[in-house]
Amino acid sequence: DHYVVIGKGESILSCVNEIMLAISNGYADNKPVVVLLPSEEEKKRLELSPDVEILIGEPSNKDTLKRANVESAKYVILALEDDSKSVFVTLLVKGMSNAKVFVEALRPESFELLKQAGADRVIVSRELGGRLLASSIFEPEVVDVIEDLTTSTGSYDITVIPGDEVWGLEYKQAFEKLYPKGCFLMGYIAQRVVLMPSLAERIPKGSKLVVLKRAGK
Amino acid sequence: DHYVVIGKGESILSCVNEIMLAISNGYADNKPVVVLLPSEEEKKRLELSPDVEILIGEPSNKDTLKRANVESAKYVILALEDDSKSVFVTLLVKGMSNAKVFVEALRPESFELLKQAGADRVIVSRELGGRLLASSIFEPEVVDVIEDLTTSTGSYDITVIPGDEVWGLEYKQAFEKLYPKGCFLMGYIAQRVVLMPSLAERIPKGSKLVVLKRAGK
Ligand SMILES: [Ca+2]
Ligand SMILES: [Ca+2]
Repeated sequence: DHYVVIGKGESILSCVNEIMLAISNGYADNKPVVVLLPSEEEKKRLELSPDVEILIGEPSNKDTLKRANVESAKYVILALEDDSKSVFVTLLVKGMSNAKVFVEALRPESFELLKQAGADRVIVSRELGGRLLASSIFEPEVVDVIEDLTTSTGSYDITVIPGDEVWGLEYKQAFEKLYPKGCFLMGYIAQRVVLMPSLAERIPKGSKLVVLKRAGK
Repeated sequence: DHYVVIGKGESILSCVNEIMLAISNGYADNKPVVVLLPSEEEKKRLELSPDVEILIGEPSNKDTLKRANVESAKYVILALEDDSKSVFVTLLVKGMSNAKVFVEALRPESFELLKQAGADRVIVSRELGGRLLASSIFEPEVVDVIEDLTTSTGSYDITVIPGDEVWGLEYKQAFEKLYPKGCFLMGYIAQRVVLMPSLAERIPKGSKLVVLKRAGK
């Protein structure tokens, strides 16, 4: 019932920092974070938070995964800088654990293979980076907004909140009820994410809300 | 007055594809796109659009940059997979051209140095990827929304539109005027980006608008 982060490089650092921040903000459950790195050098270089348990070992080795208690982990994150190894480790983890597995891929071509191996989410970081570089040309302000929205720092965050206080209200009424509280209602999540419903559409009972908020509120 | 994209790897592919898409949608000016790659192998591997001019050469060589007409370029994008080389090439480009320079950095530590070298924007892709992996744990729907918002595909886009039809209106009035047209008014850009203004705040004359739209509208 803990978090396991496996890999190397800058993705690991920002991922672990974001998890620690979410735990300290109360957004994520306060469970142990175990980080598996390939070497002592990488451990020195990354300077991870002292609240994290760090193991050194080769993740494609099942015994190493057992040392990290992958069997009982709730979430396993892989950022291995090697997509074939990521496929292999995803299969190993899925074979020994019920954990959700989130994987950073280097190449878009690896997306499907990682999904087939059982990955619950695949992020192709550099593809995202390339798109933002392109958008910097034709819509720089949008890139500013997106850079802010993708981190828990900055001025604004997108977040999900319980919706019970506006269930059954029309979207327009719900918007006006939440706005003075600093929540900008973008849409709701019932079976799927629905942004920008029509003004008269009623917020479904049981749904959660997607809102934009000022950071720190 | 053209676009120059320099580097290698997946960032280049997604960056060029996004520029071509923006040109075909009319979001970006229809100017030539010149891509400078390090080798013929990289050219074969990436399979870039045939509408792109591809040069092969070493970007830290000033003559290579001249071949790409960097002197008269409007935008130069660097994704070199080597942050020290990126600093060097940023200095070269800024010394010979008035182009805006947007750089992909591998390490967060390089951010400040690239800014000092004159980079107009620095994107640390893998840092962004790491944050999204972490957010997948505690707010997976937000990651879905952000993945959609960061590409011109998917269901929704954040975009900037001219604001003249709502200048002087209160934010609430402007919101209600634009909503039926499929534009969800998030805020405005005057000197800086202001999201979620108060309901009675007037949209400043001369400002542009930040809106969420359904894709393809
Ligand atoms: Ca933020
Ligand atoms: Ca989109």
